[in-house]
Amino acid sequence: MTTDLSAIIPTFAGGTIDRADQVRVNPERLKEAMMRPNARLLKLDGLSPVFDAAGDLAWAPLYEASPDNDLLLLGIDGDTPCFAELNGAGAAMPAADPRLWQSLGVLPPEQAAIYATARSLVDWHARHRFCANCGQPTESRKGGWARQCNKEEGGCGAEHFPRTDPVAIMLAECEGKILLGRQPRFPPKRFSALAGFIEPGESIEGGVARELWEEAGIKVRNVRYIASQPWPFPSSLMMACTSVTDDPTLTLDEEEIEEAAWFSLGEVKAAMNGDPEAPFIAPPPFAIAYNLLKNWVEEQEG
Amino acid sequence: MTTDLSAIIPTFAGGTIDRADQVRVNPERLKEAMMRPNARLLKLDGLSPVFDAAGDLAWAPLYEASPDNDLLLLGIDGDTPCFAELNGAGAAMPAADPRLWQSLGVLPPEQAAIYATARSLVDWHARHRFCANCGQPTESRKGGWARQCNKEEGGCGAEHFPRTDPVAIMLAECEGKILLGRQPRFPPKRFSALAGFIEPGESIEGGVARELWEEAGIKVRNVRYIASQPWPFPSSLMMACTSVTDDPTLTLDEEEIEEAAWFSLGEVKAAMNGDPEAPFIAPPPFAIAYNLLKNWVEEQEG
Repeated sequence: MTTDLSAIIPTFAGGTIDRADQVRVNPERLKEAMMRPNARLLKLDGLSPVFDAAGDLAWAPLYEASPDNDLLLLGIDGDTPCFAELNGAGAAMPAADPRLWQSLGVLPPEQAAIYATARSLVDWHARHRFCANCGQPTESRKGGWARQCNKEEGGCGAEHFPRTDPVAIMLAECEGKILLGRQPRFPPKRFSALAGFIEPGESIEGGVARELWEEAGIKVRNVRYIASQPWPFPSSLMMACTSVTDDPTLTLDEEEIEEAAWFSLGEVKAAMNGDPEAPFIAPPPFAIAYNLLKNWVEEQEG
Repeated sequence: MTTDLSAIIPTFAGGTIDRADQVRVNPERLKEAMMRPNARLLKLDGLSPVFDAAGDLAWAPLYEASPDNDLLLLGIDGDTPCFAELNGAGAAMPAADPRLWQSLGVLPPEQAAIYATARSLVDWHARHRFCANCGQPTESRKGGWARQCNKEEGGCGAEHFPRTDPVAIMLAECEGKILLGRQPRFPPKRFSALAGFIEPGESIEGGVARELWEEAGIKVRNVRYIASQPWPFPSSLMMACTSVTDDPTLTLDEEEIEEAAWFSLGEVKAAMNGDPEAPFIAPPPFAIAYNLLKNWVEEQEG
């Protein structure tokens, strides 16, 4: 991947490493990659990143991996096989550690993408040790990119793949203003784009329309896709969209949204610039909501 | 959802029913919906649709549901609560029954969307009866939109939600031609857009670039999202994109792609028109690959 892949590359979306799927699925080639003297291991503290003195992701020689842990092939960087340990760490909920957010905000795009991949997969393995089809234990396969239920030990043999949950995150536009909202868990004054999981039997565009109807009581048209971002808390694929409505009357779902309002171009710009007089605090730059707002401002000024 | 939601509405993407998430999550309201005299049940034969004499999806009164089966709230259509039975039918692989494909091709968009939702969820429940976290049995919750591991019977209490697996399906363009390929399982002469699952730690755009590199050996830039489609075989979200490459040299992954070639505007138009002289047979109209080709032809003809 290069920077001319798309106009907007959000944090975590800038991966360039060769994921080497043909090595993953070939036990001989996988073993050969593990044996290479330059093979390296991403250091993790549970699910959290570990940084070296320069503030980059820290790596160790692969032989430092615990013999008790399965290995995940993150990919091959140039000629360096890169692994992470399936260390059993799992978290059902997003991480709220402010230090994590700060450190991710300054990582180079390629490193943020590697951490996102490692975090999602380590977490997925920890929370999917059993077969959803028959209840028997499963084992890591394909260099950590699948789990399989063991037929020889009485299981059904089903193969399971890591989840990636598509989430729409969206603006609605009306009379030159955009809709932003506050979830109850947000820090004070923070407003962001509304969001929700895409459900079975639904397109991205249908999901955008449903979420805005359920959460804000507005009917939208002209849904337009802007950009996407992997979000490893725990395993979302964020898909940022805009839409248009003709009636700004809001009816909020107060369980999901504690406050929502329409903001003008000037108000959004003030918030993006960190102006203390701005009527709200913008989402942080590593969230795709930030890219979505920035893109809207640029389109207005274009 | 209305037809002005987006420029392209592929088959299965045209849902308009109110999914009524506030009813799903409220046991009292859910019970009230089940008790309404007009509540109705989508007829299914395993995972296959059942049609009435007019060729529409067939419905029965809700009391015809088996008392042994949990119910799935598909949504509320006007004031009619619509359910399906979690009948235990599951299939790990796409359905290949030509009669199914024919019948889906002529269903009105709203009905195709309801069938897609029902099929994905009935299948998901059948193949996820156990907790992936602890191996204990799980139970349907929230009107069929979740399963929960039962803490009182020794489980861990984890809640599980239906999977929706994002898949990129893409064209690459080079010198006025587009790349199409054949999977070994395709009928003779059929060519279609290449496709693959988006992986953890990857954007849609990154997934498009990776798939085209892995399967066809080309490096692309300028990935552009076109449209999306729920695809219930078993639970994909298809996201159709275009991209551009400067070097048409192909290196195929022959496990995935048995043949691939660049086709001109005239050749694609001939195939879309069903011309017997066309160099390939186009994908069927209910596949988003068809919408992707149609959109490309329209863009070329401006």
